[in-house]
Amino acid sequence: MRKVAILSYGMTKVDKHWRKSLRELYGAAAKKAMSSVSIPNIDALIVGNMCASDLSDQNNIGSLLADYLGITPSTAYRIEAACGSGGAAILGAYTAVASGMYDYVLTGGVEKLTDGVGGNTTYSLGKASDAEYELFYGSSFVSINALIMNRYMHMYKTSRETFADFAVLMHKNATKNPYAQLPFEISRETVLNSDMISDPISLYDCAPVGDGAAALIMCPLDVAKTITDSYVEVVGIAGATDTINISSRSDLLTLNSTVAAAKKAYAMANVSATDIDVAEIHDTFTITAALSVEDLGFCEKGRFGKMLSSGGLEAGGKVVINPSGGLKARGHPVGTTGAYQVAEIAMQLAGKADKMQVKNAEVGLAQNIGGSGSSTYVTILRRP
Amino acid sequence: MRKVAILSYGMTKVDKHWRKSLRELYGAAAKKAMSSVSIPNIDALIVGNMCASDLSDQNNIGSLLADYLGITPSTAYRIEAACGSGGAAILGAYTAVASGMYDYVLTGGVEKLTDGVGGNTTYSLGKASDAEYELFYGSSFVSINALIMNRYMHMYKTSRETFADFAVLMHKNATKNPYAQLPFEISRETVLNSDMISDPISLYDCAPVGDGAAALIMCPLDVAKTITDSYVEVVGIAGATDTINISSRSDLLTLNSTVAAAKKAYAMANVSATDIDVAEIHDTFTITAALSVEDLGFCEKGRFGKMLSSGGLEAGGKVVINPSGGLKARGHPVGTTGAYQVAEIAMQLAGKADKMQVKNAEVGLAQNIGGSGSSTYVTILRRP
Repeated sequence: MRKVAILSYGMTKVDKHWRKSLRELYGAAAKKAMSSVSIPNIDALIVGNMCASDLSDQNNIGSLLADYLGITPSTAYRIEAACGSGGAAILGAYTAVASGMYDYVLTGGVEKLTDGVGGNTTYSLGKASDAEYELFYGSSFVSINALIMNRYMHMYKTSRETFADFAVLMHKNATKNPYAQLPFEISRETVLNSDMISDPISLYDCAPVGDGAAALIMCPLDVAKTITDSYVEVVGIAGATDTINISSRSDLLTLNSTVAAAKKAYAMANVSATDIDVAEIHDTFTITAALSVEDLGFCEKGRFGKMLSSGGLEAGGKVVINPSGGLKARGHPVGTTGAYQVAEIAMQLAGKADKMQVKNAEVGLAQNIGGSGSSTYVTILRRP
Repeated sequence: MRKVAILSYGMTKVDKHWRKSLRELYGAAAKKAMSSVSIPNIDALIVGNMCASDLSDQNNIGSLLADYLGITPSTAYRIEAACGSGGAAILGAYTAVASGMYDYVLTGGVEKLTDGVGGNTTYSLGKASDAEYELFYGSSFVSINALIMNRYMHMYKTSRETFADFAVLMHKNATKNPYAQLPFEISRETVLNSDMISDPISLYDCAPVGDGAAALIMCPLDVAKTITDSYVEVVGIAGATDTINISSRSDLLTLNSTVAAAKKAYAMANVSATDIDVAEIHDTFTITAALSVEDLGFCEKGRFGKMLSSGGLEAGGKVVINPSGGLKARGHPVGTTGAYQVAEIAMQLAGKADKMQVKNAEVGLAQNIGGSGSSTYVTILRRP
């Protein structure tokens, strides 16, 4: 199997981009990635997106974006795995390069959630659940995760304050990220006193809705070395699934897809959780952060609160979690979130994260979830 | 690059499957593919689909189907390229196997168009065009293709009768296909006198709307040889794009994406158009058949009518086109059509096409188009 590198990347701020169409948004990110390296051409475009059909009345965005970028007749298609679309697109792009079929693959994702021509964003996001068994009966993403959070609080005697403190940390991190949607500090009380969305999840336990695009160019490792000094190697990558319907799970508090994907990716990279210096994890809600940190193996089940309060998730701790601010404060343009994460880890390992920089980061991990844990895509990068 | 084979396949009849959900429909096809060979597990599920979000309120169908089939924690995601989703999924699955990441990949596609919980099928299909420049101004797929057909008739002095004769041939072929949606013969007059949809395209110039699923298992060639005698090798595969908006094209009568994808696939397979014994081509409308036959290199531009009337597209002719009945009469469940085509060609080359069988077929080709030619995926198979 050909070794693969992230050659370059570009992203837009996560925001309400009401003046930019889908193609303009992705175009802005892709042009940054394309203009920062000198390469002969793009062979394929593999782009992640979830909601364009519902909210922009646009499918076929592989062709749309290839046309806009002037890279026809390159191969192009879209990959969708709900909120995991960005991570899945990067996995698809990885196999495209590793196979030897394509040398330069433009990937990443784009999502516009805040000003659709039609559709309802909450309902559209609900289509990531099992529509016939969850959505049609009134379950939304937040209500499903509220069930999980209640269960966690009961099983592990955890208070809302613990979850609030994670949100506080994410907002603090985001103040150093020029691409973050919510780059301002909040207090524990901000979270506790914010509107209750679905008990016990309050507004500030939730990732915001936003628009954004992140683009990456992937190529063979040997080729990357001849082009730039700031490439990073993809040393582990894997996807895994769990039941889509949460009622079918034996344990609400384990993300089986994250456990399985992490196991495969760690084995491929020949590392363990203790080797990870920095990670961008999928904190759709503060409860999702707890499960993710535990299921990636950064601490034992139920010990998230302890690790957080002891500073284990910050600089100087066991692993720096979400220096970007995470979904909570960088933002969560769903189908492109996984692409932001991988670009952010690449930026960290290349030493180009400016104020967000984690010192001496050598190995980093991105974890991107589709649905309520129905799938997870884990990517592990290493500094050359 | 690891060589790749089609190990097995299964499909449902294209029909109005009002009693089957998305998962049941794909499940029926996948179970046929899975039960016909003995393999240890499925490593990944890569499925093509266009309209599930609009018409079934369901995204995240990679996870949905993996869960239904009981193959979690396999990796899973959906690939979408409008009407080319099935062909694009097979290309994605090809790179997944060729890369060495996965040994057994379940692919293909599923589509339900006839009884959606919401949405409008014609409008949903229109999202394959450039929404901001075509759909929002009232263009539909049929109206765009009517412009192209008018131009063809003018440039090449071709009558509606010529196109009608292609529809007649497709319906004749479909009578031998147990999976065809419209397995009955029609006359030239049936077409000429059918309702005018968008002049000069009448009802019988159009592929019907239908539901269906086709599943294929792909694996390394060396592995396939140890499992079954009826595998076929994927010797050439490629995708290519053109402008999504037809007003940006220099020539309305050339499908640049088909020309480019065919050129790459022929080169990879080390064959030329004259070596193809049987082809399943993308005849969304009878005009699309004319452009496809010409742009795949089976005859010169403008000579489609001549080739058709001389029997060149039937048994004993230059190349047998659409023994399945094609989109016109097998049916066109959009995001899975490309998967039907590849399964049908595999069936031909394995000598298992029963009444549809093309004698002594050694090399076959499938051509699947996304949008109005914005992308094309070409797959070339060879009998071992």
